[in-house]
Amino acid sequence: MFKSTIILNIVTDLDKLQRMVVKFRDERDWKQFHNPKDLAISLVLESTEFLEHFQWKTEAETIEHLKNRKAEVDEELADVLYWVLLIANDLNINLDEAFVKKMVQNQAKYPITKAKGKHTKYTEL
Amino acid sequence: MFKSTIILNIVTDLDKLQRMVVKFRDERDWKQFHNPKDLAISLVLESTEFLEHFQWKTEAETIEHLKNRKAEVDEELADVLYWVLLIANDLNINLDEAFVKKMVQNQAKYPITKAKGKHTKYTEL
Amino acid sequence: MFKSTIILNIVTDLDKLQRMVVKFRDERDWKQFHNPKDLAISLVLESTEFLEHFQWKTEAETIEHLKNRKAEVDEELADVLYWVLLIANDLNINLDEAFVKKMVQNQAKYPITKAKGKHTKYTEL
Amino acid sequence: MFKSTIILNIVTDLDKLQRMVVKFRDERDWKQFHNPKDLAISLVLESTEFLEHFQWKTEAETIEHLKNRKAEVDEELADVLYWVLLIANDLNINLDEAFVKKMVQNQAKYPITKAKGKHTKYTEL
Repeated sequence: MFKSTIILNIVTDLDKLQRMVVKFRDERDWKQFHNPKDLAISLVLESTEFLEHFQWKTEAETIEHLKNRKAEVDEELADVLYWVLLIANDLNINLDEAFVKKMVQNQAKYPITKAKGKHTKYTEL
Repeated sequence: MFKSTIILNIVTDLDKLQRMVVKFRDERDWKQFHNPKDLAISLVLESTEFLEHFQWKTEAETIEHLKNRKAEVDEELADVLYWVLLIANDLNINLDEAFVKKMVQNQAKYPITKAKGKHTKYTEL
Repeated sequence: MFKSTIILNIVTDLDKLQRMVVKFRDERDWKQFHNPKDLAISLVLESTEFLEHFQWKTEAETIEHLKNRKAEVDEELADVLYWVLLIANDLNINLDEAFVKKMVQNQAKYPITKAKGKHTKYTEL
Repeated sequence: MFKSTIILNIVTDLDKLQRMVVKFRDERDWKQFHNPKDLAISLVLESTEFLEHFQWKTEAETIEHLKNRKAEVDEELADVLYWVLLIANDLNINLDEAFVKKMVQNQAKYPITKAKGKHTKYTEL
C-alpha cells in the first residue's frame, strides 16, 4: 500500500491581506470614492499619523512609548499597509514584482562598497 | 507500508520581502542610522512622492499618466512598502497580526449598514 | 518756517505674528524641545491636517465644506503659518528676504511664455 | 509758510508677499488648476521637502547642514509660505485674523501653568 500526501501550502500573505482589504471596501460600496489621488492622500495621512508617535521624544521616551503604546503604533503601521494594498489592487500594481524590481535598482544605486556606513543620498554618493 | 509527506511551504511574501529589505540594509551597515523617528520620516517622504504623481491631474490625465509612467508609479508604491517592512522589523511589529486586528476594529468602526456608500469618517457616522 | 515729518511705520505683519509665536513658546519653556527636525515634523503634520479637509470630496462638496467649516479650515492654515514663523525664528531665516529671492528664481524657472497655461514641472517644460 | 509731510508707511508684509504670489500665478494663467485639494497637496509636498533636510542627521550634522546649505533650507521654507499665501488668497482666508484667533485658542488649550516645560499634547495635559 502506498499513500502520498503532498501539501502545497503556498501562503501568500500579501494576497490574503489584499483580499481582506478589497472585500472590506467593496462591502461598503466605497469604490466610487476611490480615485488614485484620494487614495494616495490616505497613504500620506496614515504615514504622518505613524510619524506623530515619534515627535518631540528623546530616545529614552521613544523606547518607553513603544512599550506603553505598542498596540497603537502597530495599528498605525497596519493602516499604512492597508492603503498600500488597496492602491496596489486598484492601480493594478503587482506589489511583489514591483518590490523585487525596486530592490534590484536600489542595489545599483547603493553599491555596498560605496554606501556602507553612510546615510548619503545616492545622488551625492 | 510507506508514507510520504511532502510539505512544500513556499511561504509568505511579507516575510520574504522583509528579509530582502533587512539584508539590504544590514549589508550596508545602515542600522546605526535607523531610529524610529527617521524611519517614519522615510515612510512619509515616500508616501508624498507617490502622491505627487496624481497632483494637478484631471481624471483623464491620471489615466494617461498611469499608462505612460506605470513603472515609476509602481516603484514609488514599492518604496512605501519597503519602509513599512523595515519599520515592522525594527519595531518588532507582527504586520500580519496587526493587520488582521486592525481589520476587526475597522469592521466595528464602520458597520456595513451604517457606512455603506458614505465617505464619512467614523466619528461622524 | 515749519516742517513736520511724521513717519508712522506700523510695520510688518510677519514680524508681529512671529513675535506672538515666539512669546507663546517661550512663556511655556518649550524651546528645549524645539530642534529643527521636530519643528519640521510639526509643519508636515499641520499641512496634512489642512489637506485632510479636502479629501474624498467632489467640487460641490468642497464648496459646501468651505462654507460650513470655514473657521476650522482657516485655523488649520493658521497652524501651518505658526510653524513657518517659529521655524524661521529658530533657524534664523529672514522670511521676507528668502521669499523675494525665491520668487525671482521661480520667474527664471517658469518663464511666462513657456509656462503659461501648463501645470508641467519646470524640469519637464 | 507751512509744510507738513505725513508718511504713513503701513507696510503689511503678508499682503505684499501675497500679492506677489497671486500676480506670479495669474501671469501664468494657472488659476484653472488651483482647486483646494491640489493646493493643499502642494503645501504638504513643500513641507516634506523642508523636513527632508533634517532626516538622518545628528545634532552636529544638522548644525553643519544649516551652515553649508542655508540658502536651500531658506528657500524650502519660503516655498511653504508661498502656498500658505496662495491658499489664503483663493480660499478667502484672512491670515492675520485667523492667526490671532488661533493664538487665543492655543492659550486656552495650553495654559502656562499646566503646559510649562512639557511637550504633552493638550488632550493629555
